[in-house]
Amino acid sequence: MNITEQEFRSFEERKRARFINSLSGFKSANLVGTKSKSGQTNLCIISSAFHLGANPALMGFVIRPDVTSRHTLDYMRETGFCSLNHVHEEIFERAHQTSARYEQNISEFSACNLEEEYINDFYSPFVKEAHIKIGLQLQREVTINENGTHLLICGIKSVSLPEKCLMEDGYIDIEKAGTVSVSALDTYHKTKKLARLSYAKVNKKVQKIEK
Amino acid sequence: MNITEQEFRSFEERKRARFINSLSGFKSANLVGTKSKSGQTNLCIISSAFHLGANPALMGFVIRPDVTSRHTLDYMRETGFCSLNHVHEEIFERAHQTSARYEQNISEFSACNLEEEYINDFYSPFVKEAHIKIGLQLQREVTINENGTHLLICGIKSVSLPEKCLMEDGYIDIEKAGTVSVSALDTYHKTKKLARLSYAKVNKKVQKIEK
Repeated sequence: MNITEQEFRSFEERKRARFINSLSGFKSANLVGTKSKSGQTNLCIISSAFHLGANPALMGFVIRPDVTSRHTLDYMRETGFCSLNHVHEEIFERAHQTSARYEQNISEFSACNLEEEYINDFYSPFVKEAHIKIGLQLQREVTINENGTHLLICGIKSVSLPEKCLMEDGYIDIEKAGTVSVSALDTYHKTKKLARLSYAKVNKKVQKIEK
Repeated sequence: MNITEQEFRSFEERKRARFINSLSGFKSANLVGTKSKSGQTNLCIISSAFHLGANPALMGFVIRPDVTSRHTLDYMRETGFCSLNHVHEEIFERAHQTSARYEQNISEFSACNLEEEYINDFYSPFVKEAHIKIGLQLQREVTINENGTHLLICGIKSVSLPEKCLMEDGYIDIEKAGTVSVSALDTYHKTKKLARLSYAKVNKKVQKIEK
């Protein structure tokens, strides 16, 4: 079936949100941990983190200035830092709960039963239960005037991960770490590897790489 | 284990690329179809598509101006349009092959054994074998000066999908459509739904939604 712009624009608001949120494909599931200058911590689930570049090492994600992620944006502007923590099978329900509209003086860490962890001298709290934890520094903010959202471009400062998940060639086996994926607004999926494929070349069939 | 910026910056280039590309989590796998003004078609796999907003309906993705995606960028600038096609289990190897460095006068559609399809009067070719196909119009280009990449902000113009994948409430069951996910640069995964969760509210435990 084919649905035109005119048709989906007339969908009821929540229905349109679910529909449009499904279109980009499977999304990453990450918890962003921040701490205000005054010491208030915050945790916020996002599904928009994307790879921007390896050299320099950059990641981007989108923050909507609504109540639930407003504090993340404020604290990142205040301090310049956040942590990014992969959501895995055992914490996805608690991670989803962080999207509830908690008051500013309530930390989603304690409200959602996830523990703060500080690694070395990094300012922002990580999620202790997470297996893959990344320290990010805000580099630049791009305002998306079309809808009032904010694209945050961040530099990667540190990576914590289980040693067994790091392959010799640099590949991180995030499936082995239990990292989950999201579709639309609210559906969580685990994964099963189909194949790792060789670097594609003209006139050469891609091969499956056996680990 | 903890890896600092200083440590991963010293990784050999390909190793660093694999490592950093793994960090954002699971990524979407999409084929971008374009056609130049003069009629040359192009197909390019991307893993950076992300949801930007539902009202207006916007999607973003990143194009690196290297040989393999240069033509996509050129044709989008020329014509203002592209198609976005979910990669699924049966075409992921052919989809990966589109990342080889084909000459400009070679269409990845024919070189990679994927068929062009035109839907209604949309300018850009879709991938006939894909199950979920989205017509996009380039709205704005944001240059990421940090690394010379281009973030393309696109409006969603049309959606084609199997009727059985569209739920009444607007949710699209992309797992049922066979859509795959990518980790790092080259690893494809199918998914298995853990749960769909209810809208999170303060002081209320999230519930699993049965379909």
